[in-house]
Amino acid sequence: MKPTAKRTLSILAGLGIGLAASTSAWSNSTLEQVMKARNLTQKDLLAAAKTYTPSGGRDEFIAFSSGGQSGQVIVYGIPSMRILKYIGVFTPEPWQGYGYEEESRKVLAQGNIQGKSITYGDTHHPAISETKGEYNGRYLFINDKANPRIAVIDLHDFETKQIVVNPLYKSAHGGAFVTENTEYVIEAAQYAAPYENKFVPLEEFNEKYRGGITYWKFNNEKGRIEQENSFSVEAPPYSQDLSDAGKGPSHGWSFTNSFCSERYVGGIERGRPPFEAGCSSKDTDFLHVVNWKKAEELVKAGKAKKINGHNVITMDVAAKEGVLFLIPEPKSPHGVDVSPDGKFIIVAGKLDSHVTVYSFDKIQAAIKAKKFEGKDPYGLPIIALKDAAHKQVQLGLGPLHTQYDSKKCVVYTSLYVDSMVAKCDYCEGKVLDKLSIHYNIGHLMTMEGDSVTPQGKYLVAMNKLAIDRFNPVGPLHPQNHQLIDISGEKMELLYDMPLPLGEPHYVVSIKADRLQPTVRYKSGTDSRTDERHPYATRAGREKTERTCDNGKCTIHIWGTAIRSHLTPEIVEAEVGDEIYFHITNLERAQDQTHGFAIYGHDAQMSLEPGKTATAYMKADKEGVYPYYCTEFCSALHLEMQGYLLVRPKGYKATAATMQEGQKYTKADYETQVKTNVETQGVIDSVVAFITSHNYQEFPTVVALVEDATDQLEFAKDAKAKSEAAAGKQDWQNAMLWANQWWQYQVKAADLGLRAKTHLEENGAKKIK
Amino acid sequence: MKPTAKRTLSILAGLGIGLAASTSAWSNSTLEQVMKARNLTQKDLLAAAKTYTPSGGRDEFIAFSSGGQSGQVIVYGIPSMRILKYIGVFTPEPWQGYGYEEESRKVLAQGNIQGKSITYGDTHHPAISETKGEYNGRYLFINDKANPRIAVIDLHDFETKQIVVNPLYKSAHGGAFVTENTEYVIEAAQYAAPYENKFVPLEEFNEKYRGGITYWKFNNEKGRIEQENSFSVEAPPYSQDLSDAGKGPSHGWSFTNSFCSERYVGGIERGRPPFEAGCSSKDTDFLHVVNWKKAEELVKAGKAKKINGHNVITMDVAAKEGVLFLIPEPKSPHGVDVSPDGKFIIVAGKLDSHVTVYSFDKIQAAIKAKKFEGKDPYGLPIIALKDAAHKQVQLGLGPLHTQYDSKKCVVYTSLYVDSMVAKCDYCEGKVLDKLSIHYNIGHLMTMEGDSVTPQGKYLVAMNKLAIDRFNPVGPLHPQNHQLIDISGEKMELLYDMPLPLGEPHYVVSIKADRLQPTVRYKSGTDSRTDERHPYATRAGREKTERTCDNGKCTIHIWGTAIRSHLTPEIVEAEVGDEIYFHITNLERAQDQTHGFAIYGHDAQMSLEPGKTATAYMKADKEGVYPYYCTEFCSALHLEMQGYLLVRPKGYKATAATMQEGQKYTKADYETQVKTNVETQGVIDSVVAFITSHNYQEFPTVVALVEDATDQLEFAKDAKAKSEAAAGKQDWQNAMLWANQWWQYQVKAADLGLRAKTHLEENGAKKIK
Repeated sequence: MKPTAKRTLSILAGLGIGLAASTSAWSNSTLEQVMKARNLTQKDLLAAAKTYTPSGGRDEFIAFSSGGQSGQVIVYGIPSMRILKYIGVFTPEPWQGYGYEEESRKVLAQGNIQGKSITYGDTHHPAISETKGEYNGRYLFINDKANPRIAVIDLHDFETKQIVVNPLYKSAHGGAFVTENTEYVIEAAQYAAPYENKFVPLEEFNEKYRGGITYWKFNNEKGRIEQENSFSVEAPPYSQDLSDAGKGPSHGWSFTNSFCSERYVGGIERGRPPFEAGCSSKDTDFLHVVNWKKAEELVKAGKAKKINGHNVITMDVAAKEGVLFLIPEPKSPHGVDVSPDGKFIIVAGKLDSHVTVYSFDKIQAAIKAKKFEGKDPYGLPIIALKDAAHKQVQLGLGPLHTQYDSKKCVVYTSLYVDSMVAKCDYCEGKVLDKLSIHYNIGHLMTMEGDSVTPQGKYLVAMNKLAIDRFNPVGPLHPQNHQLIDISGEKMELLYDMPLPLGEPHYVVSIKADRLQPTVRYKSGTDSRTDERHPYATRAGREKTERTCDNGKCTIHIWGTAIRSHLTPEIVEAEVGDEIYFHITNLERAQDQTHGFAIYGHDAQMSLEPGKTATAYMKADKEGVYPYYCTEFCSALHLEMQGYLLVRPKGYKATAATMQEGQKYTKADYETQVKTNVETQGVIDSVVAFITSHNYQEFPTVVALVEDATDQLEFAKDAKAKSEAAAGKQDWQNAMLWANQWWQYQVKAADLGLRAKTHLEENGAKKIK
Repeated sequence: MKPTAKRTLSILAGLGIGLAASTSAWSNSTLEQVMKARNLTQKDLLAAAKTYTPSGGRDEFIAFSSGGQSGQVIVYGIPSMRILKYIGVFTPEPWQGYGYEEESRKVLAQGNIQGKSITYGDTHHPAISETKGEYNGRYLFINDKANPRIAVIDLHDFETKQIVVNPLYKSAHGGAFVTENTEYVIEAAQYAAPYENKFVPLEEFNEKYRGGITYWKFNNEKGRIEQENSFSVEAPPYSQDLSDAGKGPSHGWSFTNSFCSERYVGGIERGRPPFEAGCSSKDTDFLHVVNWKKAEELVKAGKAKKINGHNVITMDVAAKEGVLFLIPEPKSPHGVDVSPDGKFIIVAGKLDSHVTVYSFDKIQAAIKAKKFEGKDPYGLPIIALKDAAHKQVQLGLGPLHTQYDSKKCVVYTSLYVDSMVAKCDYCEGKVLDKLSIHYNIGHLMTMEGDSVTPQGKYLVAMNKLAIDRFNPVGPLHPQNHQLIDISGEKMELLYDMPLPLGEPHYVVSIKADRLQPTVRYKSGTDSRTDERHPYATRAGREKTERTCDNGKCTIHIWGTAIRSHLTPEIVEAEVGDEIYFHITNLERAQDQTHGFAIYGHDAQMSLEPGKTATAYMKADKEGVYPYYCTEFCSALHLEMQGYLLVRPKGYKATAATMQEGQKYTKADYETQVKTNVETQGVIDSVVAFITSHNYQEFPTVVALVEDATDQLEFAKDAKAKSEAAAGKQDWQNAMLWANQWWQYQVKAADLGLRAKTHLEENGAKKIK
């Protein structure tokens, strides 16, 4: 019998949560009608209930997704599947000011390739920092495949702090993966190339092209990669792909798979079969097993070779010292995933129908016994598959990536060609369930499924094709992430989420409560260095300085932003000047961000509370350049403006004085003051409401009250200026300052009303 | 236990039967339990049912939102509130290749400001093209405030096709707004500045700084703005803000509001009260009423003055000829919105507590009777408020913008300071309902609420602050768009949607079925010109040409992309060469996009089916540069790679030949052929399943079958090559081509399985 909305309703009623009780506006729109009108089944309704998150609600997990070739990181909530933020990483992004002000330009410049600015990245695999194999929520790492780089994002403020360039590779798909305590961030080469930045003909591919695995040393205190303490293990020109670090018993080891271990070089234009033919003709490729602890010791012992200034454990050293071993793995694999207990490594062979479960114990036993089936052409020992495998599980077509459940022995593997997720017991080697997805799943991800404490509950299928899943938006389709409920015995599809920008490859998720992001900076912070900005300033200390040296003049502006004005409002310069607007956002209130943009110059800043950032411009042409706040911050946001005036060289000012567009009289002043007094009455009544309630139990309201108190302090100052001008019968200024006083009152009233509403909506209680 | 292709096959065969669909898995998870666990109220459940959209479901409306200072346009569905796409407009965006290949770089270069590249925009107001005041779904326009520009997006493929730079202004908040048949796109200046690109001291603000309203002529057939047929109406240095075009009886007229009609110039750093004080001290600003039909006639009659090569109706001509009239409007207004019947204009005064409803008839009567209360300092006639106003409705604090319902006389106005939406009857001047939002709403938007046929149903509140609505993601918060059900008497909040990137200012929505986007281009299309690309090519016709002129050499590559190889796979160049990779995506299948990236060069392309685009690079350093497909397109996507080899000047090749990394024997060839024959058997069984069903009634399946047929044709070709090599006992090539043949089979199988699943899931019927 087909489930109907009506049946759902009767179930609801039976459960004592019927809708008849709704008395307000919902009465004209019952659940049954809605379900019928929107063609929802009972199953749909349940999925809706499992994902819908009401206003102000929180998601249980936060996902960090690569943005693929958008070069960014995507942050979304689970189960609501709402995207919360795109973090600029390798690609400039003006909303965040990323790459549009000087502080973040410096971060991007760290990623220059051979001195050349590369303004995008092909991000693939994010990783969250770990402590004892558990996510600690402090840092996120992500790689760029196109130009081998790793970026460090601080989860304190969700900003990119560092980019490091791999000194050896010319591509790096397989990164980032972290070791158990984030000692290292692992990045593997992909398309083999010479380490030196030199031309080497393809005829010398086997001899001179190389792969490799890099271990970036991470300083957990400073939150930065230490390039000088990092090293790489040289590897054959097999296309190294993804990695995973050992955990628990396998800590100190890492695992990297590969494809095209055929070392095939295509050339379809010259009659050779294409790469795809030659790179998939063997039945197996090689799992690379690395003893990175041993490699670290060798580096410390001076046994690394310096190549491009970087420590490299060469293959001969690696073979001799027992650093790098190979094991056959099913054809063209992608994911390699260490089990939470660190005892197993599962590899999915994309052109096979199996996943292979390797036993770390078996691998160690073979190594210890020096039981190898041979050596590869580079002298690296090969452990036989039968000596390393625990099980092989036949799953279907195109097994790609495996993730762990919180349930013992349970894993989920994506099947690319079959467009399915397979659930299986890897201890027993048994398929438990399969679910169709739409379409062609790449990676998949369970909650904290990469860590020692997988959380189960949900799985996200990262599908490479959406085709007909969403309203059409032209030839370029969004990607489709499907949320799957894995709490029960059978997998159940909950939600289809389009990805509007970028092609996510891999996602990691973390329990939301492991993250402790801040909402403001200490006033005057350069957010990219986390240190006090040398040009930070505070209210009343703003200044503009122009200094010249050999005819080259530079203007530094120690400026501020606060609701609703930028200081200074007028900057004068001469053609040829170099200008630095250093603006500090004086706000302390949450979400009270200001922006800065200026005509004719490629600068845009996002100034969150406390941040100081710098817009640089060369005044290369005379003219009038309006600047303004780009973030709608207050009722007078549009009036938050200024002018940069660039005079031609040698310009002589004439004696003209500023002409007021509007003249004010004593009467105007008095009318404004009357308004202000009345407004104060309204404010007082709101204050009385707030203080007569237990507002101190509501942190949101406490913050609003603090902010409103600040605004009233500013109002007091403007009032004083107004009264001083009135004392001198300067009605023009008296009126204008009286209006400014009123503007501060309006800002205070805005905050007060928001506080009052919050109290009313959240059941605040009247106190005596 | 060695994995073999044979095992793959047995799985393929197994799938011929398929897994039984699970239907009862929900039994362990009832609605009641879920609601309790997730703290959902009955009201939440209803809201969930009103917004949840199951896999494959469609949204009823599509919203186009400005991305604010992200410089992009955001596309989302209503009511699911899922973001479907970010369209690159003023800011380069690599996922789309926008600004990372030559075709779109040309579009971005159209937006250069005084010769300077500006790589972002501050987008504010999108507008959809109209026919007789109804949205026609063909084009979208959006402005840049920071650098006054308008972009044209074609909704055929959701790509930006044109950017025009305003020749007069130095900022332009108020655009884009279209006239009834998209004759013109309206853009108003904001911060007054001299029209010439010259320095003019602020002391001459009143005399030489100017505002204005520009009417960009739009060619609806060509889908492009005609700059030479566009004109502007000069306006006083009041900060012009938003506009709206007349409809029906008011067609031929347009309305633009303003703030800071005080013409105040701040200078807080020199002791002057800030802009915000001086720009908000009068009780009223000016609504600008323009007879653009008359202005158009004057331009045609040669009465326009050429300024910076652009037609300008100066204020004296405008005053004399009856082109521009002023009417007082409530303090610092933002929205100005013409009613669907074209008879009323509603203005919301942000620092007032009213909206003012103007009557077009009254305005016309006053103009006809020459009944003016005076002139402004520039000689422009002022119509008295009482002679133009139909009603004033007191709403609350900070009225900002108004949108129309499908119900007669019903409008919704955002109240910024109150954080509320007010519903009212503007005919009667009566408030009907109010709803709190979270927090500080800017614009709001009803479905097609700007057109002559508002659709009612939903309203979106574009809130400027999210504060505590979502999981925290650092100091920079997402914006919050709240979906409100307006179908009933009372407004009801349905959904909170975070905006992860950019600060949307204004959104327009359209019935989804008015859009007819394509899924592919005619093969070889330059999508930015919509014409055949001069370097387009087709399968088998790929070529690489290097030509030198005076020692400067250029390489053009007529290349192609198809699952899973790029042609050519190897490109050889010399230091100093300029290289153009022109790649045509040969795919016809929906969503079968390929990408292109290369090490060390700032190029990234998105090649949707049929598109040809160009990656340019200067080979300035010798070396090895891998390139590859960046869009996960197929199981062998990672193998879709190539090498650009840049030789040093004067390099002499030695006689070395390519060394095969792997040698194949006759036995290898025969094993592969056996696999292929068996695979063909499986494919045949899938084909039999499909053709034994009414698949031709399923367009998705028909497309898949076409694609699979193509793949099998390719397989045939590879098979022929394989057999030819075998005939010559060239087992190396015989094996490799046999494997390539199998790769095409796997692609065909992938498609076949997807088609079969689609048929099974959609109730296809067996035919006789």
